[in-house]
Amino acid sequence: MSDAVLDHLKAARPAFIERLAAFVACPSVGADPDYAEGMEAARRFLMTRLAEIGFDNIRTLTAGGQPAVAAEWMGAEGAPTLLVYGHYDVQPSAPDEKWHSDPWTLTERDGKIYGRGVSDDKAPSLIAIETLGAFLAVEGKLPVNVKILLEGEEEVGSATLRAILETYKDELQADAVLSADGARWRSDLETLVTSTRGNAGFEFSIKTADKDLHSGRYGGAVPNALPVMAKLLASLYDETGKIAVNGYFDGVTEPSEAERADLARIPFDADAAAAALGTVQAGEPGYTWLERNWLRPTLEINGMWGGYIGNGSKTVIPSEAHAKITMRLVPGQDPVHCIEATIAHLRANCPAGTELTIDGMRGHSCAYALPPDHPLLLAASDTIVETTGQLPVRIGIGATLPVASMMAEALGMDTVMFSYSTSDEDYHAPNEHFRCTSIDHGFEGWVSILRKVGTHDPAHYAEMKARRA
Amino acid sequence: MSDAVLDHLKAARPAFIERLAAFVACPSVGADPDYAEGMEAARRFLMTRLAEIGFDNIRTLTAGGQPAVAAEWMGAEGAPTLLVYGHYDVQPSAPDEKWHSDPWTLTERDGKIYGRGVSDDKAPSLIAIETLGAFLAVEGKLPVNVKILLEGEEEVGSATLRAILETYKDELQADAVLSADGARWRSDLETLVTSTRGNAGFEFSIKTADKDLHSGRYGGAVPNALPVMAKLLASLYDETGKIAVNGYFDGVTEPSEAERADLARIPFDADAAAAALGTVQAGEPGYTWLERNWLRPTLEINGMWGGYIGNGSKTVIPSEAHAKITMRLVPGQDPVHCIEATIAHLRANCPAGTELTIDGMRGHSCAYALPPDHPLLLAASDTIVETTGQLPVRIGIGATLPVASMMAEALGMDTVMFSYSTSDEDYHAPNEHFRCTSIDHGFEGWVSILRKVGTHDPAHYAEMKARRA
Repeated sequence: MSDAVLDHLKAARPAFIERLAAFVACPSVGADPDYAEGMEAARRFLMTRLAEIGFDNIRTLTAGGQPAVAAEWMGAEGAPTLLVYGHYDVQPSAPDEKWHSDPWTLTERDGKIYGRGVSDDKAPSLIAIETLGAFLAVEGKLPVNVKILLEGEEEVGSATLRAILETYKDELQADAVLSADGARWRSDLETLVTSTRGNAGFEFSIKTADKDLHSGRYGGAVPNALPVMAKLLASLYDETGKIAVNGYFDGVTEPSEAERADLARIPFDADAAAAALGTVQAGEPGYTWLERNWLRPTLEINGMWGGYIGNGSKTVIPSEAHAKITMRLVPGQDPVHCIEATIAHLRANCPAGTELTIDGMRGHSCAYALPPDHPLLLAASDTIVETTGQLPVRIGIGATLPVASMMAEALGMDTVMFSYSTSDEDYHAPNEHFRCTSIDHGFEGWVSILRKVGTHDPAHYAEMKARRA
Repeated sequence: MSDAVLDHLKAARPAFIERLAAFVACPSVGADPDYAEGMEAARRFLMTRLAEIGFDNIRTLTAGGQPAVAAEWMGAEGAPTLLVYGHYDVQPSAPDEKWHSDPWTLTERDGKIYGRGVSDDKAPSLIAIETLGAFLAVEGKLPVNVKILLEGEEEVGSATLRAILETYKDELQADAVLSADGARWRSDLETLVTSTRGNAGFEFSIKTADKDLHSGRYGGAVPNALPVMAKLLASLYDETGKIAVNGYFDGVTEPSEAERADLARIPFDADAAAAALGTVQAGEPGYTWLERNWLRPTLEINGMWGGYIGNGSKTVIPSEAHAKITMRLVPGQDPVHCIEATIAHLRANCPAGTELTIDGMRGHSCAYALPPDHPLLLAASDTIVETTGQLPVRIGIGATLPVASMMAEALGMDTVMFSYSTSDEDYHAPNEHFRCTSIDHGFEGWVSILRKVGTHDPAHYAEMKARRA
């Protein structure tokens, strides 16, 4: 592929590395107030660079938490508008003694560049920014209209992102989100994420008597809260391991034969994956590991406790027991309905004399699914085919990514994850790194996808947004 | 009933109260080294009094812990020999501020005498001693041979009693044990204890993976230790609540129709007892509360825990879970067999990939049952009929009393509990007290039972001991 913009990016590669080093040198740990200066330095770095490359309306957007950096370039009349998303906050560097080089000094070793935040999400964000800059430098314009939003709270659960999206709803409105975040699943396989699971959860207690009782004086005559709780929790699943809560699967669609066939083509040895974790496969029967993790809901017990849990033995009949439950939900499931169905199941299965109390609710979020015919997804797929020669596999993510569901819920926009980091780059651990070759692949990919979207009819995107609404 | 010995005791009642006050004034808290002097004072008090009333071979017996006080009078040729048991150690007095009078000063109020240890076991022990003294004073001899053993560690679980019994096996040998300890169940019902339950227990863990896993990344694909543990614990019981461990009931005999009819005659409102504890009846179906608590074994989960049990929510798939189990066993059950059967059940019910580890074993003790035709039991029953006009109900104790099973296991002797304290006398709480009328009933009872045993043929007791061996 010969492309003047890409040639410009290749020629400026040493300058890119220098800029990335300056960005990494800002210790932007959003979780720790001691790093407020590093956060401020990272914002200054971004705002300066966005101004240099020719973006307008450069500003910070806040809703009480860490400010996001925003900018735009809206000169591509008649072309779609993309919201390019990334984040400048990083994980803490601790434990520092486990790093082989200073976490805040970009260091190249063996084809990788090391530094805190380099993979998540500084190099991927900067690749996007520099590609936009190269278009403006070489062609004086972008193929598409671009709004940029660089969040400062991704590593703390995007605490105020939803409030930012709602507060600045109008100025952030675009046709779709192209995210420079969202690590690629594997280095040996081209993939595109088309769904993430939602989540919800609650904590509850049961009480079987006014107080703990002596197992000699009362044992045999009165209930013990622990077997009652054990039986209640066991009742959430049937004999095969499938969730047995009435109504839990309401709205869940079976994966189509085509989807299942796609997943089956992914080179993935589930038994080996289990063995590597010292475990075995488990879960809902009739589905593969990837289907169970990406396309099926779960109901997990995250904690349970009751009675005497100190050293030694105590002949007590416990009167209380507690459990924490969370669920991963798939498209079509309503988190509130799933919570209510689970609580109704627990209440219905409580034996006489057992009192059940809900102690707390976790914030919930819906699953997210990208329409399979979304033009930005098709552009991303074509880009990967062109730049790598491989047809990317459409995959799900078993976890919950708040960004995509917030963008959909608050702004009605779909999100395509187009990061060039990979999930094996230790991004929440010491010695975070980024593959040097990913810089070149990233430049190619971003040039290609922006050119493709530039040929799209915005009406097609509007149709997608209407469908979501 | 006119009896010269009893008349002597009645006449000496003020002296009895003075002596009891002196005994209570010795703060014999065995658990606290600060009270060593009080323990020593209590031993001195007993040894002095035993010498005064004419006992021989007065000494202390030790096996590394608090010494027991021993003495004997062996002049009743051809009559049985009783080992009279009691204890001189008491519970700590704390919290002292909750006492309405000084715990170490015997104080009479409203027909009760108050003081730490007065009910457990100083008044009951002194009633026995003074009755023996009255026989010697009035008749110059006892109707039976008597060995006395007054323990100093009852309140700390009889830590070295078994070692004392084994070390001094020959000199403590007798035909049966008549215990001045073992509070009567209720003040409104004459009862005799004929069984106590044994106990045993262990702690175990399960492991389903090498480490805790993220519920997004792996949820649905791998096992979660908590539902595995919940199902394992629930599997210990069948749908009706009955223990479902294969072999657990080996050796258990069904209560006879006569036993059940006896228990059914006890005025006891099980639903009211449950309601008073804020609970309902539960347990093995087909048995009454008293049958379940006295005559049937239990398997209790005393603690269970795993996963995240702090504040808030954590989307973790726990890889480990833990539980503590104890059992109350009835006559015929072998604690080791019950432990092994339970562990075998847990192992057999572990799903593939779950590793089970036994983390610890509790010391175990067998259940104890007094033969229904034991001559000392019959003598106690007849005594109660004569002195109260009521036929005592034979009851069990759901708890484990180490003394009776140790006497049976170490010395082959059966134990009849013949205390005049009652279980409502706050003996492990502030304001411990003893009913003044129980002094008179105690004198009557002890005079009567000693006279009865004096008419018994020792061969009958030997036969009982042979049966036990």
